[in-house]
Amino acid sequence: MTVWSFGSRIWINGELMDAGLASLPMSDRGFTLGDGLFETMLWTGTHVRFLSEHMARFTQSAAELGFVLPVPLDEIEAGLLALSADAAGGLGALRLTLTRGSGPRGLAIPDSATPMLIASIAPFVLNPNPVDLATVVTTRHAGAPSARFKTLSYIDNIVALAQARIAGADDAIMLGTTGNIACASGANLIIRHKGTCLTPAREDGALPGIVRGRLLKAGLIEEARVTPRHLELCSAAALTNALIGVRNVGSIDRRALTADTVWARSLIDALT
Amino acid sequence: MTVWSFGSRIWINGELMDAGLASLPMSDRGFTLGDGLFETMLWTGTHVRFLSEHMARFTQSAAELGFVLPVPLDEIEAGLLALSADAAGGLGALRLTLTRGSGPRGLAIPDSATPMLIASIAPFVLNPNPVDLATVVTTRHAGAPSARFKTLSYIDNIVALAQARIAGADDAIMLGTTGNIACASGANLIIRHKGTCLTPAREDGALPGIVRGRLLKAGLIEEARVTPRHLELCSAAALTNALIGVRNVGSIDRRALTADTVWARSLIDALT
Repeated sequence: MTVWSFGSRIWINGELMDAGLASLPMSDRGFTLGDGLFETMLWTGTHVRFLSEHMARFTQSAAELGFVLPVPLDEIEAGLLALSADAAGGLGALRLTLTRGSGPRGLAIPDSATPMLIASIAPFVLNPNPVDLATVVTTRHAGAPSARFKTLSYIDNIVALAQARIAGADDAIMLGTTGNIACASGANLIIRHKGTCLTPAREDGALPGIVRGRLLKAGLIEEARVTPRHLELCSAAALTNALIGVRNVGSIDRRALTADTVWARSLIDALT
Repeated sequence: MTVWSFGSRIWINGELMDAGLASLPMSDRGFTLGDGLFETMLWTGTHVRFLSEHMARFTQSAAELGFVLPVPLDEIEAGLLALSADAAGGLGALRLTLTRGSGPRGLAIPDSATPMLIASIAPFVLNPNPVDLATVVTTRHAGAPSARFKTLSYIDNIVALAQARIAGADDAIMLGTTGNIACASGANLIIRHKGTCLTPAREDGALPGIVRGRLLKAGLIEEARVTPRHLELCSAAALTNALIGVRNVGSIDRRALTADTVWARSLIDALT
């Protein structure tokens, strides 16, 4: 078994263990049905960035989908810190995964199941290059649980990214089923248009990203129904997520954008 | 670890083993991202029903999504038979699950990954009672990979079923994102309307079910854009899937239907 992590340790339901000894029951609903949630967080070398926002989204999503946390929040946070020690001061991608636990066959949520909560950390390298985006045919299921929450049901986004790569781009722009722009395959989108900075609306399938939320709160971007026409007209664009922070977009559908580093810098600075 | 299966054996990539010894790597993309496919088949006590149709759908879906089968088809079929011996002549629900295999973090499909192919069997009991259905707000993502293929990304259907149960029904009727009727949470729908038998179209999010395909081929049902209005007017309805075959619907949104057992019988007979 190949382990893509620092130090090969993993944290499960409160216990830190050798990743080689860790395994998932075949009947876990996270595996059989994508019945789970996750968070991806940045270990900066000294702390977990935006930890409280991640935990707030995670616990709220869990509550809305009827998931139970097997250990208290402070114990989870202690686990993330213990795991991060393996990164030895380097950047790390922390992943926290919660599943409904094992159950008999079928979609019905079991009356009693022991949830699985798993944390792992992998090396992360920040790519400073502008990203090229291509609009793809695979859409986001606007309004559905799979789009509103960060669940394990990711097949549509996997296909969207693959389609963008085939088109020669680095990442995809996905429209929502509403016809408006939603997001990239694993990041939120911001566009600069006529002096305002817009980010696609949750109603169109955008996930409420942590960095996106910070920038909205700071008043630097506003939520809007972003259309394909906006993409053709925008003067600059950026992707945001917890790992990359803010990353400049170099082109959309082969139309080069001016890499507006001053603008991107102002967004990045707003996060610190 | 609780194992919901006959005899506690499981088949993985060509090997039959004790389910207690089997486990999934935490980095398997089937688990981390719902990046996998499955089939559910009926073991009748003597054979796997509609085996060739299941295998045709499975291999075609795998090819379209770029999955690789780790062992040849005849070996898979031999594995299913070996596993079914545990059912000792009783009905069984056979599940075959294929994942992309383990990979590093991120959505990008790894250049090389060892796929996981897992077969398991669980006891199955046929429920002869008519099923009560309720239309729910969670929709099917019409046209998307998550609706076109039987993938591991099932969170929307899980939520749909839970919503139907809260409404006091046994199963959900999901509309597609197109606004037309798609299916139940884990079964296709057939309605009888003005003397014709209609089943929702694939364009509206219906999965190409095996029993549905058989009945279409036999000319007993036809694909149509089924609307909410059709549900209000239909005189009878049935659910179909590989395990239940054809099951009568007792009510839709609390409107009782005449349990047309003669009609249902004619559909069931067409399958043999």
